[in-house]
Amino acid sequence: MARPERIAVLGAGSWGTTFAKVLADAGNDVVLWARRAEVAEAINESRRNPGYLPDVRLPESLRATDDAAAAVHDADVVVLAVPSQTLRENLAGWQPLLPAGATLVSLAKGVELSTLKRMSEVIAEVADVPMDQVAVVSGPNLAKEIAAEQPTATVVACADHDRAVALQHACSTPYFRPYTNTDLIGIEIAGACKNVIALACGMAVGLGFGDNTMSSLITRGLAETTRLGAALGADPMTFAGLAGLGDLVATCMSPLSRNRTFGERLGRGETLAQAQEAAHGQVSEGVKSCSSIRQLAARHGVEMPITDVVHRVCHEDLQPGPAAAELLGRERKAE
Amino acid sequence: MARPERIAVLGAGSWGTTFAKVLADAGNDVVLWARRAEVAEAINESRRNPGYLPDVRLPESLRATDDAAAAVHDADVVVLAVPSQTLRENLAGWQPLLPAGATLVSLAKGVELSTLKRMSEVIAEVADVPMDQVAVVSGPNLAKEIAAEQPTATVVACADHDRAVALQHACSTPYFRPYTNTDLIGIEIAGACKNVIALACGMAVGLGFGDNTMSSLITRGLAETTRLGAALGADPMTFAGLAGLGDLVATCMSPLSRNRTFGERLGRGETLAQAQEAAHGQVSEGVKSCSSIRQLAARHGVEMPITDVVHRVCHEDLQPGPAAAELLGRERKAE
Repeated sequence: MARPERIAVLGAGSWGTTFAKVLADAGNDVVLWARRAEVAEAINESRRNPGYLPDVRLPESLRATDDAAAAVHDADVVVLAVPSQTLRENLAGWQPLLPAGATLVSLAKGVELSTLKRMSEVIAEVADVPMDQVAVVSGPNLAKEIAAEQPTATVVACADHDRAVALQHACSTPYFRPYTNTDLIGIEIAGACKNVIALACGMAVGLGFGDNTMSSLITRGLAETTRLGAALGADPMTFAGLAGLGDLVATCMSPLSRNRTFGERLGRGETLAQAQEAAHGQVSEGVKSCSSIRQLAARHGVEMPITDVVHRVCHEDLQPGPAAAELLGRERKAE
Repeated sequence: MARPERIAVLGAGSWGTTFAKVLADAGNDVVLWARRAEVAEAINESRRNPGYLPDVRLPESLRATDDAAAAVHDADVVVLAVPSQTLRENLAGWQPLLPAGATLVSLAKGVELSTLKRMSEVIAEVADVPMDQVAVVSGPNLAKEIAAEQPTATVVACADHDRAVALQHACSTPYFRPYTNTDLIGIEIAGACKNVIALACGMAVGLGFGDNTMSSLITRGLAETTRLGAALGADPMTFAGLAGLGDLVATCMSPLSRNRTFGERLGRGETLAQAQEAAHGQVSEGVKSCSSIRQLAARHGVEMPITDVVHRVCHEDLQPGPAAAELLGRERKAE
């Protein structure tokens, strides 16, 4: 890397804060934007993000602000770390502030509900930039483990390979190893779908099923994800990689995963409202994405039985028990 | 299924006993052979296998014997449920007893040390039968979960599709769902290699690494397994299926997995001898298979960095800490 990059990270949730730490540890000049002034102040004063990562000391070089214009001023890279369904609205507000030519990086994982667009498509459209200016970071990346500097691999995807390589260098640290990829479609579809499969795995755990069932759900879930990706023009091999299989396994296995935890509550018989209340009022990404992914699959004639069942449990009053029976009762055939 | 099949299961360990239960529950006439007369007697008298599955009540219709000739007499299907490195010697003793035309089913997962042959190759050679008489059962099949009648999917592989379908019907129960496949090479390479990757995952857990690292190991492990399989003529898609990804995830995730548990002990600093003593004197399958798989890979010019490191930890005094550093320190590149 020729020089430290100026990088803005917009969104101070768990993953945004963690990725800002990675970028600062890699030697860049990083500003983290938080919506609430008190969060930015707490980070600047105590070097901690009390709401999301209270136990992690953030690097001295990382500065926080609640002023988005100041954060993105002169930035080479702008990282978008807000939830997928609010990305359009947030980015519309920031669009006039974005430096020309900056790499716009998506950390959000989802498919937009109204338009069925991937996050990179929303970004290119709202920021009015060519798609090769947009990058995605995705992989087996449980934020708390990275914040604790556990060795982690990830994928940096951009249609422009040179830009992917520049971003790879900008976020390389001894504990965070990025690999490059140019298959944005595959990386984003994998990232969105894994939240839905993790909900299904959580429901299975909540219903009392064991690791055999869970492993089958992961396998079948990756197969239906790959089918959707292939129909949309992705490289099927992407789904066998770190941002496909790797991220899916991490999300489905880990008790740290919000989608899996949310699914467990549903599996144990809680209503969506009860699970939402337990998750501090938020539904997990998969609860929304299951509906947009299901619509996208229908539009392209792709069968996604697990996603379909998760949608019906979350939004059409199907109970998890009968849902499991339906999945397990599918016709016996060749694999 | 036209009529119940006469089935012999040779080997009354955890998986042999469990598979015999599945076959009996599916309505077949099943005889389970145990090496020791007292185990056969215990099963016949108490309906339990005290050494391996003390908590599981076996079906009334399941009979046990220590007389191999009586077990295989008139059998349509003979299931071989002995460890991979003893299969040749055991089968040589049984060969004169085998009914002509019987389907020979391998439950063993490994690659023979001296010959580098897959189990189906050993069976066809020693039993002197054509390869399309040999079948393999493999999948995300933790025996204790199946014995508890947890819903489980598996793969029944045979080069002869009709024979695979007959076996599929013979082992279908409400809790055990077999899918057919004709890619014996892929199924067996996946089954052998997953034990080695599970050892690596166990070492990572023993060293204190988290789910991000584990998920990367699973992803990279499946990639090197797929490379070996492809070089040997397997269908790469097999590795994305239940007997590939599915079995790998179950084995790497579950605390019930012997290979993972063995690896954890090595990762915590125990010697091979100490880990072996803790495992009632047995080394796990992966400890042996890592060496034969590594040789097979070398013969075909396939790079398998995880398998190589596991072999060197088990057999060449490499310590798990430096082994992990070696894997994590590989050159950053495109995925």
